[in-house]
Amino acid sequence: MKFCRFKALDRVRYGLVDGPIVTELRGSPFERYELTSVRRPLDRVKLLTPCIPGTFYAAGMNYLSHITETAAAIGEEVKAPDKPDVGYRAINALIAHEETIVIPSDATEEVQYEGELVAVIGRKTHRVSEDEALGAVLGYTIGNDVSERSWQRSDRTMWRSKNTDTFKPMGPWIETKVNFNRMVTSVRINDELVSEFPTANMIFGVAAYISAMSRYLTLYPGDVIWMGTDGPTQNLKDGDSVQVSVTGIGALRNPVSREEPAIPNQ
Amino acid sequence: MKFCRFKALDRVRYGLVDGPIVTELRGSPFERYELTSVRRPLDRVKLLTPCIPGTFYAAGMNYLSHITETAAAIGEEVKAPDKPDVGYRAINALIAHEETIVIPSDATEEVQYEGELVAVIGRKTHRVSEDEALGAVLGYTIGNDVSERSWQRSDRTMWRSKNTDTFKPMGPWIETKVNFNRMVTSVRINDELVSEFPTANMIFGVAAYISAMSRYLTLYPGDVIWMGTDGPTQNLKDGDSVQVSVTGIGALRNPVSREEPAIPNQ
Repeated sequence: MKFCRFKALDRVRYGLVDGPIVTELRGSPFERYELTSVRRPLDRVKLLTPCIPGTFYAAGMNYLSHITETAAAIGEEVKAPDKPDVGYRAINALIAHEETIVIPSDATEEVQYEGELVAVIGRKTHRVSEDEALGAVLGYTIGNDVSERSWQRSDRTMWRSKNTDTFKPMGPWIETKVNFNRMVTSVRINDELVSEFPTANMIFGVAAYISAMSRYLTLYPGDVIWMGTDGPTQNLKDGDSVQVSVTGIGALRNPVSREEPAIPNQ
Repeated sequence: MKFCRFKALDRVRYGLVDGPIVTELRGSPFERYELTSVRRPLDRVKLLTPCIPGTFYAAGMNYLSHITETAAAIGEEVKAPDKPDVGYRAINALIAHEETIVIPSDATEEVQYEGELVAVIGRKTHRVSEDEALGAVLGYTIGNDVSERSWQRSDRTMWRSKNTDTFKPMGPWIETKVNFNRMVTSVRINDELVSEFPTANMIFGVAAYISAMSRYLTLYPGDVIWMGTDGPTQNLKDGDSVQVSVTGIGALRNPVSREEPAIPNQ
């Protein structure tokens, strides 16, 4: 099943996507819901991010070759993690499918995509084993962990390199049934394939992260865990369209726009 | 004015605290509210954290002497920041005034308090100057940035050292009118004064943080910025009561309990 969140008649609702049709829900997939009789063409609804996370987790370095690439890009030694120490991203940066990634005027050219699988938590979860962990997941969506590499090098934290407004596209919906073994993540810029990797090639998988995290913290419905990226990253520029696809989920597409520099005061 | 959030008759409400009395509000100080005629004794309501932040920001290293202390505690060189690069904490870890800080059974003895001023954002804010920045703030509350130092040293991120469930007491309420120049932050363990510092001795103040952050990101009502701590930190142990006070705001008090180790499987 594919759960989406959308705006219609100025109200936010959840829906069930079936091909070109969205059936509206009463309630939410994170609590309790019923199907309604309202059906809308998918291409006529304004999709929102499929949830607004309470806490926005990100695995960070979770594929071996991405660690080598990042080390080269930021000019620092980066070690492969020996345990799943999770990181964070910020709510302000989230945008939905088809919304625009806006590059600030003072960013360098090095604003790059990172295509990621996203696990969406469906139930309150504390101290689960790896065997139980996937039961905490409502489903999976797609994230693009847009990053400004010069700020990633220069700043003490990743606040603006990773969390500038619009730098966290997420969507288009949550797919509840996936097959990790067949999953491929691919990124296209203007329809040209620029990165492709087996999604499950992670150092620590979804179950390992959830089990380790839940030893110390409670996960809540709507929390998301971005699982990291692999492969080469490239610069995004004004006018580009960037698309992250994950087999069995769908495609998250966002146009890119660079902000005009402000006119200096005379 | 002091805004609190509390639970009464299983509903969450906001209130205005005046001495020993809470007057219930209809609505919220983050949107629009009216006073109601319902008044309750403060000592009979269950206070909640005064808001649930959309994004939970933390200044981190923001007092010179704390940087020296931390460097000694974690055994690494730590430089004073040259600009306000903000960090993050997590929602799962928040607890209210009088709720219990629970130390996991596998934590070391080095679980320490950090008393902090917290700025609570009151309006949607983007690209404000330092002069305008304090207009974004609804008011101020108090935070205790409880930290497990061995995990701070060993982990790739601060996820469990700082964000284990119950490690982020915040409250008791939001005070809208403060005087930075007279503000002193003090920490007491079991009524003994263990730390005291002028709150305004920050490397970068609230206005500097908000202005710098808002260049790249939008702040939303209910977002919080924890402003960092100064002075010595000490271990918290089972049975302690830890209290962080800030002049003009009030006192945030939390009991401390250490979890019993699990009985191993036979």
